[in-house]
Amino acid sequence: MGRLEEYKDIFYPASIAVVGASANPKKLGYHCITSIIRGGFKGKIYPVNPKSAKVCGFKAYPSIKDVPDKVDLAIIAIPRHIVPEVVKECADKGVKGIVLITAGFKEAEDQIGPKLEREIAVITNQYGIKVIGPNTFGIVNLHADLNASFTPEFSMVEKGNISLVSQSGGFCHLIAPLSLKDGGGFSKIIGLGNRCNVDFADILEYLEGDPETKVISLFIEGVDNARRLFEVASRVARKKPIVVYKAGKFKTSDKASLSHTGSFAGGYDLYRAAFKQACVVTVNSSEVLLDTAKAFSLCSLPKGNRIAVISAQAGLGMIACDLCEENGLEIAVLTEETVQRIKELLPPLSIRTNPIDMGPAWYDWETCREVVKTVGIDKNVDAMVILAAYASANKPIVMELTETLKTIACQKPVVTCFPSPGNIWLREKRELESANVPVYPTPERAARVLANIVKYAEALRSKAKFATQSHL
Amino acid sequence: MGRLEEYKDIFYPASIAVVGASANPKKLGYHCITSIIRGGFKGKIYPVNPKSAKVCGFKAYPSIKDVPDKVDLAIIAIPRHIVPEVVKECADKGVKGIVLITAGFKEAEDQIGPKLEREIAVITNQYGIKVIGPNTFGIVNLHADLNASFTPEFSMVEKGNISLVSQSGGFCHLIAPLSLKDGGGFSKIIGLGNRCNVDFADILEYLEGDPETKVISLFIEGVDNARRLFEVASRVARKKPIVVYKAGKFKTSDKASLSHTGSFAGGYDLYRAAFKQACVVTVNSSEVLLDTAKAFSLCSLPKGNRIAVISAQAGLGMIACDLCEENGLEIAVLTEETVQRIKELLPPLSIRTNPIDMGPAWYDWETCREVVKTVGIDKNVDAMVILAAYASANKPIVMELTETLKTIACQKPVVTCFPSPGNIWLREKRELESANVPVYPTPERAARVLANIVKYAEALRSKAKFATQSHL
Repeated sequence: MGRLEEYKDIFYPASIAVVGASANPKKLGYHCITSIIRGGFKGKIYPVNPKSAKVCGFKAYPSIKDVPDKVDLAIIAIPRHIVPEVVKECADKGVKGIVLITAGFKEAEDQIGPKLEREIAVITNQYGIKVIGPNTFGIVNLHADLNASFTPEFSMVEKGNISLVSQSGGFCHLIAPLSLKDGGGFSKIIGLGNRCNVDFADILEYLEGDPETKVISLFIEGVDNARRLFEVASRVARKKPIVVYKAGKFKTSDKASLSHTGSFAGGYDLYRAAFKQACVVTVNSSEVLLDTAKAFSLCSLPKGNRIAVISAQAGLGMIACDLCEENGLEIAVLTEETVQRIKELLPPLSIRTNPIDMGPAWYDWETCREVVKTVGIDKNVDAMVILAAYASANKPIVMELTETLKTIACQKPVVTCFPSPGNIWLREKRELESANVPVYPTPERAARVLANIVKYAEALRSKAKFATQSHL
Repeated sequence: MGRLEEYKDIFYPASIAVVGASANPKKLGYHCITSIIRGGFKGKIYPVNPKSAKVCGFKAYPSIKDVPDKVDLAIIAIPRHIVPEVVKECADKGVKGIVLITAGFKEAEDQIGPKLEREIAVITNQYGIKVIGPNTFGIVNLHADLNASFTPEFSMVEKGNISLVSQSGGFCHLIAPLSLKDGGGFSKIIGLGNRCNVDFADILEYLEGDPETKVISLFIEGVDNARRLFEVASRVARKKPIVVYKAGKFKTSDKASLSHTGSFAGGYDLYRAAFKQACVVTVNSSEVLLDTAKAFSLCSLPKGNRIAVISAQAGLGMIACDLCEENGLEIAVLTEETVQRIKELLPPLSIRTNPIDMGPAWYDWETCREVVKTVGIDKNVDAMVILAAYASANKPIVMELTETLKTIACQKPVVTCFPSPGNIWLREKRELESANVPVYPTPERAARVLANIVKYAEALRSKAKFATQSHL
C-alpha cells in the first residue's frame, strides 16, 4: 500500500467519529466537534458520547461500535485511562485513522502515561491504524474542508500548497494567525505530538507524494530516530523544498522538550549539519519559517545568487542590500546596456546603479515600470527585490507595477516589500501574491527569504553536479 | 537659549506657512498642505503659492513676505533652484524653523545641488534658523497634531513616548505602518535627510530634554561628525534609552548612502563598538528597533538577567528559552518555595520547572493566575515572558490574566506573546499595553526585546559602578 493510500483515511476521510464530542464548551470534545462542523466538512459526522442523544445538532452514539456506518477517521478527546479501550473499539470497527487529542501519555511525569501509550501503540500497530498524536492539537486539511483539531479558527487559514508539520500544537497556533497577517496558503497543518506510530519521516514520505503539497515546513523539538528522518528528508528535499525550524538549541529548551512531547531535543548543531547535507533549509524563527515557505510556495527557483535591488526609497534599498550581502547573496553587476538605459531613464538625483533608487521618479509610473522591466531582463540578474513604502504621493505605484512584476516573476523570483498603513494596498498585495510575487512586511524579511531560496537552489545544483560526476 | 527653546518653532509652531502648497495632487506641495490639515493642526495655516488665491480652502499668499502674521515654521516643497531665495525671504520674515522637503542638493550627482545646499546653510546659520532637511519627508509631532510631512497617514500613528529620528524618510514610512500592526506609540518622527544644520547629535540633545520623549530610536546611514554623536549619545543614554539601527554594514549599501543623503556610512563595526561603550542599544532589523523601543516605552528596567518563561503551550516556551539563552539571558532558577507551590498547583502532566508550561491547566484560570503570580513575586526572577497562542478552549485566558500581569509589571518587566487570528484578543492586547505590558507577535520577538532591555539596564549599572569606583 502506498503512502497516499495509507493516510487517505486521516487526510481525506468520508466519515468521522468524534469520540468525546460534547455540547459543553468546557470539554475539549466540544471544540473538536465544533471545528469539524465549522470547517465545513462534507462527509458524515458521528458524535460519540454515552451521555447524550444529540450533540451540536448531530445524533450521538454511546460508543463507536454503535455507529451504523463505516467510520474512516476517529478523533478522540476523552480521559487518558479509557483511551486504550476506545482505540480497541475503533480497531474492531475497522477505523484506519485516529487523531488522538488526549494528552498525558509518554510526556507525563508519572508511570501511567507511558504505559498507556505503549498499549495504544501495540493495538494500533497490530491493526494497521495510523495515529496522529497522542498529545496533539490535531490536523487540518484545507483542501478537504477538514478541521480535525480543537480550534475552529484553523479553517480561516488560506488554502494553498504549504504543509506544516509540527511536534508542537502551540507552534501551529502561532503560525496560523501569522499567516493570516503576513500571507501564505496552506494545504495540511499537522500536529504530531508524541508520535505514537506516525513520526516526521512517515509524514514526509506521505507529503512527498501529496499533489496538494509543494512546500514542506517542519517544527521539530526532538526525534527518536534521527537517522531515518535525515535519510527521508534527503530524498524528499530533491523533489520539494523542506524548511525546518529546530527548537532546543540550548539546554533549558532541550530539557523542556522531553516533558513536552517525550523526546530529548539534543544535538542542535548535528541536526543543522545533517539537514544542510540533505538540502533542507534551516531557519531560526517562526516568521522566517513562514516567510520562506511562502517564497517557495510562490516563486520559481533562482538560477544564481545575483540580486537586483530596486527601491522607491533609498533607505529600504540599503537595508535589503545589507541583508543580501550578510546572507551570501551578491548584489548583481548590471550589464553595460542596462546601466546605460537606466541613466537615460532616471535623473541624476536618483541612485542609478544596483541598488537602484527611483527617487524623484517614483511617481512617474511609466519610468518606474521601464526601470523594473529593464533590470528584470538583465542576464546578470537572477532574482529581484522591489521595495516601496506607501507615501501619499506614490499611492498608485503598486498597481502600476503589478503587470510588470507578474511578467518578470514567470522567469525569475521577484520578492517585494510594500509597507502601507491600514487597509491601503491590501487588494494590490493580494493580486501580486496570486501572481506568484510574494509581499513581505519589511525589507529584511524580503531579502532573507531570497537568501533561503537561493541556498536551496544552490544545494540542489551542487547535488546534481555531484551525481553527474559520480557517473563519469 | 536652551535646546527646547531652539526647536520650539519646529515642533510646537503656532503658525505654519506651506511654501509650494498646491491643489494639484501631482505636486508634493499638495501632499504637504493635506498632511497639515488632516493632521488636525490647531494653529494658523498659510499656503504660499504665487499662482493661486486659495489652496485647499485656505487663503494663499504669493510669497511668505505677504503673509500678514508671524510665521513660526515654514514647510518648503518647491523646485531646488529657487530654495535659497525663499529661505532668504523666510529669514527676513523672522521664521525660525524650516522643514525643507525639496531634494536634489548635497546628495545629487551634479555640482549644482551641493552648491545650493551650501548657500542655504550660510543663510540659515547667519539668521539662527533650524533646518530639518533638505531631502526629508518632514517631521511629525503627534503631541502637537503636527504632520509637517508629505504623507497624511502619519497622523494615524498612535501617540506615545517613542521618538524616531531617521536619516531616511523611507524608513519612517516603514516603521509607521509596522507600529499600526505591532503597537508602539510615538512622540516625534523626524526625517533628518541631508542634515544641513540639524544632525543626529542636535536632535538627541533636543530629545534629551523633551518631556514627551521617553525612548529615542535612530536609523543612521552615516554621519559626518561621529565623535560628537557618540559623545552626546553617551550622555543622553544615561537618561533615556537610545536604540540604534545602523545601515551600511556592507559595501554596497555603504556606497548607496553617499548618493542617498550625502554621507558615507562607513565603519559599521566601529559604530557598534562606540555605541556599546555609550550604553546605546544597537539592533539589526526594523522590527527589532520598533519592538525594543516599545519595550523601553512601556516596561520598567529589569534588575538582572534572570528570566521566567511561562507558556500555555510548551513549544512557544521552548522557543522563548532558546532566544533568551542565545542572547545572554539566564533562565531563572526558581526558589524552592516557588517550585513547591507550582507542584501543588499544576498536575504532573505540565512542565513545572522554568520554563513552566501550564499545559492541561490552561483553562483553569484560577490556577493560571496563581502560577503567574507565584513566579512573579519570586526574588530570583528579574523579568517574565508569558506566552499563550489562541485556541478555542482558552479564549478567556488573556482577559483572565490581565490584572495579574498588570500588577507584576509595576515591579518588573513582563513581556508577552498572544498570537490570535482575526480580531480575537484585540481589545485585551490593547488593555495590556495600556498597562505597560507589551505584546509581541512571536515568542522570538518577545524574548529578544527582553534581552535588549536587560542589556541596557546592565550597561547603566556597570557605568554607575565605574563612576562610584572612580570617586574612591
